This record gives sequence, C-alpha cells and structure tokens, in this order.
Amino acid sequence: MPTFTSFDYQMMSRAIKLAQRGRFTTAPNPNVGCVITQGESIVGEGFHFRAGEPHAEVHALRMAGEKSVGATAYVTLEPCSHYGRTPPCAEGLIKAGVARVVCAMQDPNPQVSGRGIQMLRDAGIDVQVGLLEADALALNPAFIKRMKTGMPFVQLKMAASLDGQTALANGRSQWITSKQARQDVQAYRAKAGAVLSTSQTVLADNASLSVRWAELPTGVQAEYLQEELRQPIRVILDRQHQLHGDLKLYAHDGAVLRVAGEQADVCVALDEHEQLNLAETLADLAKHHNINHIWVEAGATLAKSLLEQQLVDELILYLAPKIMGSDGRGLFGALGLTDMQQVLNLNIQDCRMVGPDIRVVATPELKDE
Amino acid sequence: MPTFTSFDYQMMSRAIKLAQRGRFTTAPNPNVGCVITQGESIVGEGFHFRAGEPHAEVHALRMAGEKSVGATAYVTLEPCSHYGRTPPCAEGLIKAGVARVVCAMQDPNPQVSGRGIQMLRDAGIDVQVGLLEADALALNPAFIKRMKTGMPFVQLKMAASLDGQTALANGRSQWITSKQARQDVQAYRAKAGAVLSTSQTVLADNASLSVRWAELPTGVQAEYLQEELRQPIRVILDRQHQLHGDLKLYAHDGAVLRVAGEQADVCVALDEHEQLNLAETLADLAKHHNINHIWVEAGATLAKSLLEQQLVDELILYLAPKIMGSDGRGLFGALGLTDMQQVLNLNIQDCRMVGPDIRVVATPELKDE
Repeated sequence: MPTFTSFDYQMMSRAIKLAQRGRFTTAPNPNVGCVITQGESIVGEGFHFRAGEPHAEVHALRMAGEKSVGATAYVTLEPCSHYGRTPPCAEGLIKAGVARVVCAMQDPNPQVSGRGIQMLRDAGIDVQVGLLEADALALNPAFIKRMKTGMPFVQLKMAASLDGQTALANGRSQWITSKQARQDVQAYRAKAGAVLSTSQTVLADNASLSVRWAELPTGVQAEYLQEELRQPIRVILDRQHQLHGDLKLYAHDGAVLRVAGEQADVCVALDEHEQLNLAETLADLAKHHNINHIWVEAGATLAKSLLEQQLVDELILYLAPKIMGSDGRGLFGALGLTDMQQVLNLNIQDCRMVGPDIRVVATPELKDE
Repeated sequence: MPTFTSFDYQMMSRAIKLAQRGRFTTAPNPNVGCVITQGESIVGEGFHFRAGEPHAEVHALRMAGEKSVGATAYVTLEPCSHYGRTPPCAEGLIKAGVARVVCAMQDPNPQVSGRGIQMLRDAGIDVQVGLLEADALALNPAFIKRMKTGMPFVQLKMAASLDGQTALANGRSQWITSKQARQDVQAYRAKAGAVLSTSQTVLADNASLSVRWAELPTGVQAEYLQEELRQPIRVILDRQHQLHGDLKLYAHDGAVLRVAGEQADVCVALDEHEQLNLAETLADLAKHHNINHIWVEAGATLAKSLLEQQLVDELILYLAPKIMGSDGRGLFGALGLTDMQQVLNLNIQDCRMVGPDIRVVATPELKDE
C-alpha cells in the first residue's frame, strides 16, 4: 500500500465530492470525479455528468490546459483504456503530459481492471491506487455490483404503519406516509436506472412511477436542474398482459419495458410457481439494458418473492407514526414460519427521520441455500 | 421574565445535571439538584438521592456551612414549604442566610405551588423563577403529571420484528430483540415506580419483571451501585386470581400488588367489556401508592386497551431487524378500522439504534372523544 500525504487525501476527497454531483445523471455510467494539481495548486477539475458526454478526466484536462504537463491527476476510478463513445482517458492523461496519477480504486470490471493503470505505467507515469477506496466504492455500489456479478443492485422500497401494515383490510392506505417521505422516494427513483413494479400495482393506483421534478426535495432540486431530468426506465412485470395505453404510465416521458413470458420487451421463463422468473428478469435488465440500479415499488407478493429469492440488496422501509391494527394488510404477507431460526434477518445500515416518518435502510443477511 | 446572566445559566445547568444523578432512586419523590454560590465560586451543591433522605438544598447548605450567608442558591424546583419527613427547605435557606434563590420552576402541585417562594420572599430573599424551566420540566415528567392530574405517567413497552410481529403464529418469540435491547428495558424498569403487567404475561413466561442489576447497561451500572438498587412495585392485573406463590414474581425482592375486582391489593370495578377498569387502576396507584411513573410490559390485549382509552403517555417500541411475515402475532391485534381517519396517530420523539435493534419513542396524539 503506497503512502499518501494529507494533501493527497484532500484532493481525492474533493474528487469524490465532485463525482457525487453526477449521481442523478450518469446512469448507466459510474460517478467519477477528477482533480489535477501542480504543486499544491488545483489547475483542473471535473466530473462525469452524463453517459455519452466527456469523462471526468477530459473536463479536468481541458481546464488545466498546458498546466497538465508534469501535473498530478486524482481520479476516483481507474481511467478507462478502451475506445467507447469517447477516446480512452488513460491516453488523454498520457498525451497531456501528466506525471503522476492517483486512483481511488481499480475498474470493477474484471475484464478490463488494471489495463488503464498498465497503459499509464507503460508510458512512464507514476501510478498509485487505493486512496480513499472505501469512499470510492460507496460512490457506485450498483455499477460495481453489475460489473462484478452481472446482476443489478436492487433496492426494495416499502411503506407501512409502525405496526407493519401497508393498508387497512379494505385496502385503504392514502396516505400512510408523509409528503416528505414521498419526496424522498422521488429522490431515490431519480438515482435509479430502472423502477421495477407490477401491472397489479400500476393498475391499482394508475401509477406513473416517474420522477416529477416538482416533487423532488428542495435540496435535490438545488443541484439537479429541471432541464437535466433523466427518467429511469420503468420495468413492469405484466405476465397477464394487462397494461394498456391509456395508463398514466405511458403519459410521462421515459421508456417503459414490459416483462412477460412472451410477446414483451423482456421475455423470461416462468418459475415453478408460474410466476415470472425474477433472477432471469434482473439479469436480462443488467445485460441487455445496462441497468445497474433497480428501485422496486410494488406490493407484498413481489416483495416477498424478491426477499425469499435473496435478490434484494437493500430494503428501504418507511414507517409512519400510525397504528393500524393487525387486521390490515401486512408488509410481506404470510410466510408460514414455525421456528425463529427461519426468520429473515437483516442488518440496519441507517435509521433516521424523514419528516414525521422513520426511514430504515437494511440489508438482508444471506442464507446458505 | 427576569433576566439571567450566563453564570446563572451555568449554575442552573449544573444543578440540573446533579438532579439527574437521582433518577433511579428518588421515586416517588422528584429529582432535584441545588448549587450554592458566593460571587463566582461554588460553595455548596447536592441532589436528592432517596425518598426519606435529605432534600438537595439540605446537602448543599451543609456543604456551604457559613459560606451560605449572603449566597445565591440555584434549585431546579421550588423549595418545599411543608413539614414532611424533613423540615421545609424554604425555612432552611432562610435560616442559612441565603440572599438570593433562583428556581427553575414552581412546584407542580397546585395546592402548594408558590408557597415556598412566598415564604422566601416574606423573609426578604430575592427570588427569581423560570431559569431553564424546560430542562427542569424534563427532569420529572411523571412526578409533574401526577401532581397536576392525579394520574401516573404511563410508558408502554412493546417489541416486534420490522414487520410488526411479536411472535410467530405458534407463539414462538425468543428472542426477537437483542441483549442490548433487553438491557435497555432493564434501565427503563429501574427508573419506573411500578411495572404493570397481566397474570397472563406473568404465567406465560414465568416473568419476574424485576430489575436485575447484573443485566443493566454498564453505563447505568457505573452510576447506580448494586447496593442502591430499588425495585419498582410490580402491579399485576389478575382478574381471575391466577397468580400463585410459586411464581418467580414472588422470588425477587420488591412488592407485588395484585389488581382484581375483589379480594386483591387494588380492587377496581369491571368496565363494559368485563375487563378491569384501567383508568381506575392507574388513578388508584397514583393516589394510594404514590406511583408517578408506570412502565407497562404486557401483550397485545392490554396494549390495545391502554391505547384506545388514551392512557398511554409514551410508546417505547423496539423493532428488531427481522421479517417474520404477517401470519404471526401482530403488535396490537385487530382494530377493525375501515377508514384512514380512524388510524391512531403518534408523534415520534426519538428514534435510535440500541445494539442491532431500533428503539422508537412515540407519543400518541389525543383524540377528541
């Protein structure tokens, strides 16, 4: 592990903050930031803003101009080595005459990992890797998961009363959670590559499942302008072909993908319960639609299936300060458990107030099959 | 409102911290602290430790000795004016020659409120009231409630999985919550004047409902020594006279009060559902047993009745990071609600991690009857 100076830490920390500026817009690309220094002065900086547009290094090198000769570049991710919609950043850094490159982490894609670093080293550049790596990993959990496993990162959103009810027995539920919680949901949707739901949920509420800029929290609006709005792809499980063109779903910008056994945008097999194969659906979205990050909003049935099949990375649970009684509709439906050993365990990652409600972020513990 | 100097604020803040030192031991008396100063020096300080032992002012005056002449006394509660097990503190302050008394709040008992202050003023002492009053009120919510309303302060403890289940369908529940949550419960019990439960709960678990010093959180043990341990009175609703002497309940130190329709320590009427009248029970405990603060540990039936009858001041809900399914036993049982307007609303006062679990403190909103 190389040793870094406190100046190195400051600069990489700045690069990570810059990278975060792209968190609503870069999908399916990762968030990346770059800072270029001469001595103890910053001469260039930038971040990746949108897929198809220049990478962070390009912005920073443009700003630095001739001052990049002999400079140090801090990049939150290994510079790319391949020709995509833009030329490789490793080549750009070499051509610009940069003397030293510090990367927070290697490329998570095992097929290219280390190649950009090698390209830089072959050109005689001093390269160091691993500065603030944990922070860099936290920038792009979904991109990294897809690159490493071929599966998307799945966040399951649920909302209930303090006693775990999502609706009264007769189905009434408006509004369990607060306006602030609904704004928070908008911010989560805005970060996702896709919103996954079912035709049942879409039909029940005539839900659009889109991001509505006016309903984002003001803190998000301040750094995510209305004209920059990107809509996640809405992916709807529609085994029985119930979706139709009059739905609000189709009245909003943004693509809709229907998933069914046949005659759909995504065709998958049925599982042993005659339900659409969820793992196959997720893998298809990752592979053919470049979806890193899926935000799931649906009812108890899909939630239960995803959890039982260990396909959930994070549960985002909003608990409203209400008591509705156990005769309502429960969060995950009946599980038929008879022993406490069978209970599904989670780890709480975060727990805080969102307006008058509680938001819990929890990761399911993996069980050995 | 008198004006206070920053030194006044510092001294009253110190008195409030001193008062907190008695929070496990003073019941049914309030927590009170006192600081005595000469110029900008502290010459005496003390707090009320245990009912029947000297009040805070007595400890502080003893420490100050002759330096109390012309001094200022900061007291978190209006000094008492009546002869109880100890002589009135107002008289003590007068005899000691104190020149100025600052009280955080008046006595909450409407029958004596203001009398101590008047006694001091009649003796020519400069008296000011209201410094850090909100903090002083927060020291003794239960004492204050009983003094003002004749009813005890009721905390209802519940524990459930994240999806609101207290047990599986077959009744299995050990252990939903963590060791740390159970230690936290011990600390709450230790602060209460009484623990309220039902013979059903006692018989199901052979529960002792006592405070076990070894199971208190270490932070509590550090300031609450084993030899100081005070047991809350255990109050058991036992309408059908099911308690018997072989239970662990009777194997521990501390009094047990049985509540029933007749032939019991506390006899109360039955309500229209043939259940023991809960409001009458609570009022009796406040009036005849000097109980300020009741900690309730019981099942869904008692919890539901207390909530529906608006007898709960605070709900303390432990949520374990587990999913048990809606076919288990729900927190409050069936409520038969058909409209979201009927839902019981609460306000979250606090939400934090206790070990791996979440602890929610919430106050029910009062409904107009």
